[in-house]
Amino acid sequence: MILPLGYRYSSVFAGIRKVEKDDLGLIVSDRPAAAAGVFTRNRVQAAPVKLARAHLKSSRGAVKAILVNAGNANCATVSGDAVALESCEALARCLKVSVREILPASTGVIGVELDPALIRNALGPLVSGLSRDRFEAVARAIMTTDQTVKMASEKVGEVRIAGMTKGAGMIHPNMATTLGFVLTDADIAPPFLRTMLSESVAHTYNRISVDSDTSTNDTLFLLSNGASGVNPSAKERGAIQEAVGRVMQSLAEQIVRDGEGARKLITIHVTGAADERAADRIARGIANSPLVKTAIAGSDPNWGRILSAAGNSGVEFDPRKVNIWLQDILVCQAGVAAEFSEGDLKQKLDSKDCLIRFEIRGRNRGEVRFWTCDLTEKYIEINASYRT
Amino acid sequence: MILPLGYRYSSVFAGIRKVEKDDLGLIVSDRPAAAAGVFTRNRVQAAPVKLARAHLKSSRGAVKAILVNAGNANCATVSGDAVALESCEALARCLKVSVREILPASTGVIGVELDPALIRNALGPLVSGLSRDRFEAVARAIMTTDQTVKMASEKVGEVRIAGMTKGAGMIHPNMATTLGFVLTDADIAPPFLRTMLSESVAHTYNRISVDSDTSTNDTLFLLSNGASGVNPSAKERGAIQEAVGRVMQSLAEQIVRDGEGARKLITIHVTGAADERAADRIARGIANSPLVKTAIAGSDPNWGRILSAAGNSGVEFDPRKVNIWLQDILVCQAGVAAEFSEGDLKQKLDSKDCLIRFEIRGRNRGEVRFWTCDLTEKYIEINASYRT
Repeated sequence: MILPLGYRYSSVFAGIRKVEKDDLGLIVSDRPAAAAGVFTRNRVQAAPVKLARAHLKSSRGAVKAILVNAGNANCATVSGDAVALESCEALARCLKVSVREILPASTGVIGVELDPALIRNALGPLVSGLSRDRFEAVARAIMTTDQTVKMASEKVGEVRIAGMTKGAGMIHPNMATTLGFVLTDADIAPPFLRTMLSESVAHTYNRISVDSDTSTNDTLFLLSNGASGVNPSAKERGAIQEAVGRVMQSLAEQIVRDGEGARKLITIHVTGAADERAADRIARGIANSPLVKTAIAGSDPNWGRILSAAGNSGVEFDPRKVNIWLQDILVCQAGVAAEFSEGDLKQKLDSKDCLIRFEIRGRNRGEVRFWTCDLTEKYIEINASYRT
Repeated sequence: MILPLGYRYSSVFAGIRKVEKDDLGLIVSDRPAAAAGVFTRNRVQAAPVKLARAHLKSSRGAVKAILVNAGNANCATVSGDAVALESCEALARCLKVSVREILPASTGVIGVELDPALIRNALGPLVSGLSRDRFEAVARAIMTTDQTVKMASEKVGEVRIAGMTKGAGMIHPNMATTLGFVLTDADIAPPFLRTMLSESVAHTYNRISVDSDTSTNDTLFLLSNGASGVNPSAKERGAIQEAVGRVMQSLAEQIVRDGEGARKLITIHVTGAADERAADRIARGIANSPLVKTAIAGSDPNWGRILSAAGNSGVEFDPRKVNIWLQDILVCQAGVAAEFSEGDLKQKLDSKDCLIRFEIRGRNRGEVRFWTCDLTEKYIEINASYRT
């Protein structure tokens, strides 16, 4: 991992989760960092989502710290707003900064009151444990049903970018994962940072789906503190944006690969749609079809389900112009079965990476890549008893 | 079962499915019957769907027979249109009727060529086997992954109504089940019949969901042959329409209860939305959430997932006005946890029938009932290897 300059990290077990595993994380920037955020579009929004949005606004995107907890979403509770605010206020006092410079985030169960004393009492050890090299500890503290810790980093010239994320189930295209924090030591003004974040999200976090649900807490922050001393030119900003995009792409892929119960990462590549929007709708239709996802789980080259799912997407197309490839083997040509060896293909579909290519022949150029995972018995097992 | 007058039924094994079980069914009306149909809205439509729509149009809704096969959807194949037409033509010759008086329907795997000789060779035994009391035999011949045969009937005065249906997975609100045939011996003109069908579908077949997929073959026919001698008045038509609605409601419920791998029928009752459309969107959002469906499978009273799924439906509402009941026990009051005994509720959720009530307090009156089933490991097992 390449870590950006000027950030410190800490995590502790505050007693929010039932198992004894760090559940409170802190990221502090030595100097005020420019910040941008994107949030869930769910009508039901957790208290920290509302407060983080307010803080980004009142601080004009200048922040000092991210305070994050796992084990409780702090959503749909009586005391949620007060708990989120009190926690940020207490941390602001410890760090001697303004409360609006703190961005809160939470993940975990919905509808259970979060005891503010747990966070308050943990702030002392949390702040005193701050260290330059505890990035991974925070990435681990935000894990819930995640099986793997998810991090990615890049270096462009003297600018460093590092990101962490969490999320396994409940991931849906319409914005984001549960939580993602991307940090850079470049010096980038908030308006550029917001553009950088929204453009990167559009092609990464917004193009993944695990189970078509969107959580009440989805939050993604991009921070830029200037500690590298690099104030990038417009051209350099382009290179940094590409690197941020690669970091976010890697994080998004790691989420899908770790989808609850998932054994396979499915890449859906749609070409030849009328425009990008139409391609996106077709790809989502395929990605969200339980019948497609279970077929891939069973290594069954059932292209009829892919064609049917595309047909349900609401996009107009002529089925007779459709070609479908699975693992680069043509299985459907001009809307009907192509000749292929089923045994060979089944074996290829046993791979951890599956590629579905959906082409509409013609002159149209609408194209997207979209990522999802297979749907297995394990998903049911995890989700039939997550809460209790 | 109450059977309407003037219809005969037959089924045979034509060799279309791999297992030896009747796969070809025939329903013949003694006199030309008025007919109405509703079909899948999938962009990819099976050959029999296209042909049945054409026949309904060219015959002006006057038909003699329904020819149906299971084991092959006759969709996304080179020869599909020709096979559907040839089969209807061959049957028309046997029955000495016009080809446009035959309504075809198919269900089964997509993308595999259907050998027309299989149907042609089976027509002799099929027609000679016609009998007044073989209604259930046809209902059994159309079963695919169905575990139960699905039939319902009603009598209103001297008018009899009987329906059969099939479909287990791949059921989605946006129209219909895979196949459903409802027959009556009243004398009802096609325009009234079409209204009767579309209004009944709106509150029954269009309000169920198993896995949010819509097949390429979904077809529902309503036939009325006048054999009872009853030419109903406007008022009597109202009573008949209600009875048709009850038959279709029963059939739709049987489909959901037999959803692939389902152990529970979930009724979702939404009240207090701005209008029926908004209530419908919220109900669908809840019904199609894999997280809600797996929670119910595990008898987990995880109301936070229900609130979150409603929040994802795209409908605006104030979460603080939401009350949620599970099995008539208040679990969420004004958007936060209510007090309830989790042990007792878990036990109640072990029932085969689960009721989710979602209320938005206020003066709005938008209300719907919607039906779905729980999502279990068994669904995955069935669908990971259906084709092969």
